Amino acid sequence: MTDDPNTWFEKTVAQLNDPSNQRVWSVIVSLFGDMGQDPADRIGGSTLTQIISPIGIKPEAIRVALHRLRKDGWIDSARSGRNSVHFLTASGRAQSAQAATRIYDRKPDIPDKWHVLLAEDGAGQQTLDEVLLTDTHVAIGRHCALGHGELPPHCDDLLAIDARDFTVPDWLKRRVFPTDLVSACATLLSDLEHLGPVPQTLTPQQIATVRTLIVHRWRRVVLRHLDLPLSFHPTDWPGEACRDRVFAVLDCLPKPNLPALRD
Amino acid sequence: MTDDPNTWFEKTVAQLNDPSNQRVWSVIVSLFGDMGQDPADRIGGSTLTQIISPIGIKPEAIRVALHRLRKDGWIDSARSGRNSVHFLTASGRAQSAQAATRIYDRKPDIPDKWHVLLAEDGAGQQTLDEVLLTDTHVAIGRHCALGHGELPPHCDDLLAIDARDFTVPDWLKRRVFPTDLVSACATLLSDLEHLGPVPQTLTPQQIATVRTLIVHRWRRVVLRHLDLPLSFHPTDWPGEACRDRVFAVLDCLPKPNLPALRD
Repeated sequence: MTDDPNTWFEKTVAQLNDPSNQRVWSVIVSLFGDMGQDPADRIGGSTLTQIISPIGIKPEAIRVALHRLRKDGWIDSARSGRNSVHFLTASGRAQSAQAATRIYDRKPDIPDKWHVLLAEDGAGQQTLDEVLLTDTHVAIGRHCALGHGELPPHCDDLLAIDARDFTVPDWLKRRVFPTDLVSACATLLSDLEHLGPVPQTLTPQQIATVRTLIVHRWRRVVLRHLDLPLSFHPTDWPGEACRDRVFAVLDCLPKPNLPALRD
Repeated sequence: MTDDPNTWFEKTVAQLNDPSNQRVWSVIVSLFGDMGQDPADRIGGSTLTQIISPIGIKPEAIRVALHRLRKDGWIDSARSGRNSVHFLTASGRAQSAQAATRIYDRKPDIPDKWHVLLAEDGAGQQTLDEVLLTDTHVAIGRHCALGHGELPPHCDDLLAIDARDFTVPDWLKRRVFPTDLVSACATLLSDLEHLGPVPQTLTPQQIATVRTLIVHRWRRVVLRHLDLPLSFHPTDWPGEACRDRVFAVLDCLPKPNLPALRD
């Protein structure tokens, strides 16, 4: 019985699903980012339901989430005969594509050009807070940010240090790789290690469900931290092992052509 | 009359003297550091009085200051016939010599190897405070120090950044070169520019008085800041012009051989 694809599928969904942190709109963003990136991609409403409902999400919750994503300008919908189809807007596609460069990077280059920006209460703090809204900088203290690449513009009231090398204390490693991030990463790694061999005979919808669950969890690990120099990694950081395992499993689950599925 | 050396001497002493900040023991430290550095140097009590009293310091104040310096292990005294002689202890000489490398440096090399140390409240702050007691580091924030050379030992709980280059905001330039330091330096420069040509016929004691006043004021400028990279200098920092003028004037006042003077 353990070789039955349906049994494997049910066990895997149960293993990978995290009902405690299941924002439906975010699951849909993961799904479209993974399998609906082409401008021509249209995913039918019932295909979407077939992929998402095994996770335990009700059709009514999917409708509410799609409504929200349309309102946010991320997704648009159209009628196709008696059915509805859904697709990324230009803006949603652009934002997905930007995140994808990090989510799907199998061997990210750690930048070698870093800078530290320093403010003081009342001197540059507002500038620093704005810099920290970008995804190129991470807070390493209340008044201090670490970033890569060129200096951001308009930061004349910050001390900018062109940094060559770092010696990093444990309290700072823990701040940039907080316990819940390390734990989310370690749990994903462990869950993936327990999947067993992927059956060859899954349906395209089943493949899509498992891909969505994996990409969704990995996305929430990888987008929560910068690719910092190794000196910032806590010894228990399982990021690289987890990344390797994510792509090893995804490679066994080739992307199905969802728009081609009959709705 | 303006060419009379005694008139020049009186005007110069009035110009260079700063009665508002006249700690007698510190004036004596400047004097011995300048003219009593040789282990064999002995300066007689009445020579000392002749040099210092034109500044407006009373013999009783000199006695009190010498007593304090003996208690601190900086100076020792001995009888020589009916007179007393004073001289630096080994420890006083070592500390003077260390300060002298900065006070008498005509063209200091700005170090090219800098690091920034970062603490947080409760994480490394005590370590940082101890590092800031050394003369190789300057505070550039409540939780942040800038220093040169190798990393100090035992600072594992600080973030250490090997720094290559700096872009420095005005508030930080003003912090490391505070207004009163810039003003002390500018006033010394201006006072030296108003001295007029040094007469050739000053007595050795007069030369010693003027040297002491110049070294004393320069010492309190130069030891109050690190030789920081140029990017930290405020545009109004007159340090280099002042340094040039200090040595131009001192070169016209060759060190007298004080121990050779009859007491």
